[in-house]
Amino acid sequence: MTAPYIDKVDIEARKRALKVFREKFKVILDQIMRGENPTLVLPKRTLSNTIYDETRKLLLLGPEKLRRSFFDLHEAKKFMQTLLMARIIYEALERDEYPTIRDLYYRGKHTIVFYDERGKPHEENTWDEQRESDAVIRDIEVFTGLLREEMLILSKEKGKVVGNMRIRSGNDIIDLSKMGHGAYAIEPTPDLIEFIDVDAEFVLVVEKDAVFQQLHRIGFWRKYKAILITSAGQPDRATRRFVRRLNEELKLPVYILTDADPYGWYIYSVFKIGSITLSYESERLATPQARFLGVSMTDIFGYGNKKAYLTEAERKNFIIKAKEADIKRAYELMNYKWFQTPKWKTEINIFLKKKSKLEIEALAGKGLKFLAFKYIPEKIETGDWIE
Amino acid sequence: MTAPYIDKVDIEARKRALKVFREKFKVILDQIMRGENPTLVLPKRTLSNTIYDETRKLLLLGPEKLRRSFFDLHEAKKFMQTLLMARIIYEALERDEYPTIRDLYYRGKHTIVFYDERGKPHEENTWDEQRESDAVIRDIEVFTGLLREEMLILSKEKGKVVGNMRIRSGNDIIDLSKMGHGAYAIEPTPDLIEFIDVDAEFVLVVEKDAVFQQLHRIGFWRKYKAILITSAGQPDRATRRFVRRLNEELKLPVYILTDADPYGWYIYSVFKIGSITLSYESERLATPQARFLGVSMTDIFGYGNKKAYLTEAERKNFIIKAKEADIKRAYELMNYKWFQTPKWKTEINIFLKKKSKLEIEALAGKGLKFLAFKYIPEKIETGDWIE
Repeated sequence: MTAPYIDKVDIEARKRALKVFREKFKVILDQIMRGENPTLVLPKRTLSNTIYDETRKLLLLGPEKLRRSFFDLHEAKKFMQTLLMARIIYEALERDEYPTIRDLYYRGKHTIVFYDERGKPHEENTWDEQRESDAVIRDIEVFTGLLREEMLILSKEKGKVVGNMRIRSGNDIIDLSKMGHGAYAIEPTPDLIEFIDVDAEFVLVVEKDAVFQQLHRIGFWRKYKAILITSAGQPDRATRRFVRRLNEELKLPVYILTDADPYGWYIYSVFKIGSITLSYESERLATPQARFLGVSMTDIFGYGNKKAYLTEAERKNFIIKAKEADIKRAYELMNYKWFQTPKWKTEINIFLKKKSKLEIEALAGKGLKFLAFKYIPEKIETGDWIE
Repeated sequence: MTAPYIDKVDIEARKRALKVFREKFKVILDQIMRGENPTLVLPKRTLSNTIYDETRKLLLLGPEKLRRSFFDLHEAKKFMQTLLMARIIYEALERDEYPTIRDLYYRGKHTIVFYDERGKPHEENTWDEQRESDAVIRDIEVFTGLLREEMLILSKEKGKVVGNMRIRSGNDIIDLSKMGHGAYAIEPTPDLIEFIDVDAEFVLVVEKDAVFQQLHRIGFWRKYKAILITSAGQPDRATRRFVRRLNEELKLPVYILTDADPYGWYIYSVFKIGSITLSYESERLATPQARFLGVSMTDIFGYGNKKAYLTEAERKNFIIKAKEADIKRAYELMNYKWFQTPKWKTEINIFLKKKSKLEIEALAGKGLKFLAFKYIPEKIETGDWIE
């Protein structure tokens, strides 16, 4: 019953994580030895403690801390949950396991029976819902400074990539230009990927898997030396981290291509800045340099000297009327600092005025070659993106 | 603006499809030349014309045909929609395009202006919703006998695979045992894949991507010589076709691993038989030999001589109470012929009695090694599956 083919990078990753766990949680042991109330001190993961760093263009956790003590009626359960989860993760690391956040929930889920001063038994569940165990995992992430991927916690993963580059993953060297009509599905622990060599000039991230398939099949990435990626909708953590590494380590510009609607802008925002409620991740997962390539409102309607990519007849056939939810989201996005630049204001204002949205597929409907060999390269060449 | 790297298999696939289109639609031309009312005759895609073939264990279209004539007030629009879509697909084939069903909708969407006998203009849209254009594509599939993938129509694709096999896709040879921690994302046209060599004893299809990641990472497929696949939820057409080909051409037994609930059974059913409303696909996409490996109700509760895989305490912690929708779906599934075997009756009866369901992750929660190196191999070895 032993795992037969565990590879070296995983073994090293485990060692690193185990070391951090021992160092960080030793404070508890020390407190106990000193007869003190065991207390965890960790950064507060609240909205009020989330700061947008204008210089680094990142959402970061602020300086506020919370204290979680064992001998505190309000905190004891959370304290115990945190230590229970830390133990489970530690054991999984030691035993060459690869848990998911879902099975960590199951691993820890049980009922504790305790007796009150009169000897009457009571029952208390460690946790009842995954929401609770997930929150504890996040606490452990901010407490240890390790992303859960660094604890070898796996998850489902939607991101795919093709392009002129070779990577090392596990024991294999993979040539991402030799995937045929298929693609390379990114691993859930992208920090363990080693970039071996790369011959590319930019990264194009496409929201929609079907459009990725089209661009891939027609040879877009070969012609323009691109690393072509799809997030298949809202990006997951591994795809975000992978894109960030391409930008940061390989200095490749990153362009994001989504539908022309507030949902598409939000996908861009998640790549660029991260989620407000999960700001502690953004320091590692966000790509502040990411550029919104399109589809933009000015592509649809034109603006000033810029000519629209669609004719009047095409607009009539392709445009979709915005829904209430779209408009609501647009107003929400206007509150984010990174959407308060002149270009974004123009974009959002056109949207609110026209109440119109457009799918990328409408551009492919004008001809895939138009999308692949005119629209995208022309916009990149002329710097027609929004930052 | 030409596509730079189109490969040979695609060129040949285009030629084949174009030839079929010319042959099949020539009847319309012949009718017109003879001065007849242009009429398409195609199999009816209705529930009443869907037959479960007991011998082949497939849902097939029956013998009923429908006639769609140009000079028929009720049929003229549908007739014209069909020919419009056929023309668009034909042109895309000729022009080395790779449309999706979404952009085919956009390609054909426009307003036709016509004048009545008094010279008054009227407007009519070719179609207003993708539902309409999709239905027409299905009609063209049954009329030509070509799956849309054979017309080089692409789609998003969730399926992934790893294992001891090499395939040819496009111009590349891909070794599916050298994907590192990542995986090979299956192409949307799996009939164009060539199996080069394979050293595997069975195929394991896992419903959940996260569990696929776990089994992959712990080396399951190496240890047991498996081709490991995930459908990432409800399987798409390409994943179904890929699995069918592994079963039919390579004679590999196929085991399906899902959550223990009617939704999981339905995923199994889609792999095995196909969707009742899309029976014409099933002849090519279904894998009638597919086996439901688990998680079964008898794995959870035991049955007769069979010991449960879970202890009483584990059942208490892991089991989820079935919802109304689960119970409703279970009753629906009981109507399907292929769920009327003794083993399936037992399975469904236990579910309805216990009103309990279980996620695969609960078994990983008992330890990933339990799931990978005991539960799955033991069930395969002892033939503890349901057909």
